[in-house]
Amino acid sequence: MSESNGKSIYGDAGARRRRTLDAAAALLDEGGYSALTIRSVAKSSGTSTGLIYQYFADKQEIFIALLNESQLESTAYVAALPRDGGVASLIAAVIPNSVRQWARVGRMTATWRDIEGATRSERESVRELRVTAEQYNEELRRALLEAAEAEGRTLLDDPALIRFVLSGLMGVSDTIVNRWAPNLDATEFAEFSAAVITRGITAPGAAG
Amino acid sequence: MSESNGKSIYGDAGARRRRTLDAAAALLDEGGYSALTIRSVAKSSGTSTGLIYQYFADKQEIFIALLNESQLESTAYVAALPRDGGVASLIAAVIPNSVRQWARVGRMTATWRDIEGATRSERESVRELRVTAEQYNEELRRALLEAAEAEGRTLLDDPALIRFVLSGLMGVSDTIVNRWAPNLDATEFAEFSAAVITRGITAPGAAG
Repeated sequence: MSESNGKSIYGDAGARRRRTLDAAAALLDEGGYSALTIRSVAKSSGTSTGLIYQYFADKQEIFIALLNESQLESTAYVAALPRDGGVASLIAAVIPNSVRQWARVGRMTATWRDIEGATRSERESVRELRVTAEQYNEELRRALLEAAEAEGRTLLDDPALIRFVLSGLMGVSDTIVNRWAPNLDATEFAEFSAAVITRGITAPGAAG
Repeated sequence: MSESNGKSIYGDAGARRRRTLDAAAALLDEGGYSALTIRSVAKSSGTSTGLIYQYFADKQEIFIALLNESQLESTAYVAALPRDGGVASLIAAVIPNSVRQWARVGRMTATWRDIEGATRSERESVRELRVTAEQYNEELRRALLEAAEAEGRTLLDDPALIRFVLSGLMGVSDTIVNRWAPNLDATEFAEFSAAVITRGITAPGAAG
């Protein structure tokens, strides 16, 4: 198989897969997890259900692919953030990405698990999802440590710290995406939240 | 109408309404919002769909009633909490209730809005929901202020503070309910989170 031939094949397949995922994301955005069906994805991406099944075994695989993509994007996003502004700046910069990913797919994760019982699943794709989630957590942890060091502060030394930050990001994102606080400006709320989380998880002084 | 007669009528109606709501809560718990239908509620509460419709116009009204009940229960719960242990103790005591209510109904709220477009609804019951949500927020704000005062601390003076605390409670509850952090003990995680939120939102010294 020549390289150009291979590229062309993968290019077509890649583009079709991309269109499928984009259509799925738009359906999720409009109607939540229940709006995502192979039929609706086929219809709104202008293709046949048969062609969708060539790339995805079922609707779960489409959702999992979007979630995985979201986690990979978030990892790359956090890896590229500057550390030199300190922890609060870092978290304030993470929040808009969390909000985007939460709106796109994250907020449907619990519903997906409710409906599909995904935790008990032994799907290969779910195992991969755990790996990319862990990579994101690790990247965020590293970024927080480096940002704290850059401003001469330390992070509280507790295994629950990263999970608290992730929970906070999730709660703040949910509040912004679902407009639970219509009277607050989203940017101001995000900055306040970043400052409060930072007060909560850091202490003055460089690590011993 | 004699009082005893009225009581008996309302008693039966109340008991039937209660059974309906309990059956609905169990269905939500098992299969999320999509598992809640008038038919499934009738079946699992051992009654007819016709009888359910006497109490609730549609499945949305059942969900809204559960959500409203959850908010009223949470308000009463927070109102009864002791303040004398300070802010971290108060928040640590609030978390288990948030977790319970999140597991029962709260985590489905966004799905409900996705599917039903409830924000655009002019239902009387949705307006009532906003009122009970605001009452809960007010009760929590009051409790935090009094707990801070009891230990000679102040809360940061920012309109976003209560919304940050609510977001944090939501994120922490979601993490516990969905077991996003299987390696952490839930009680330890809740206590760590309460301590971090407290560090974040309070400062030493009594209010001026």
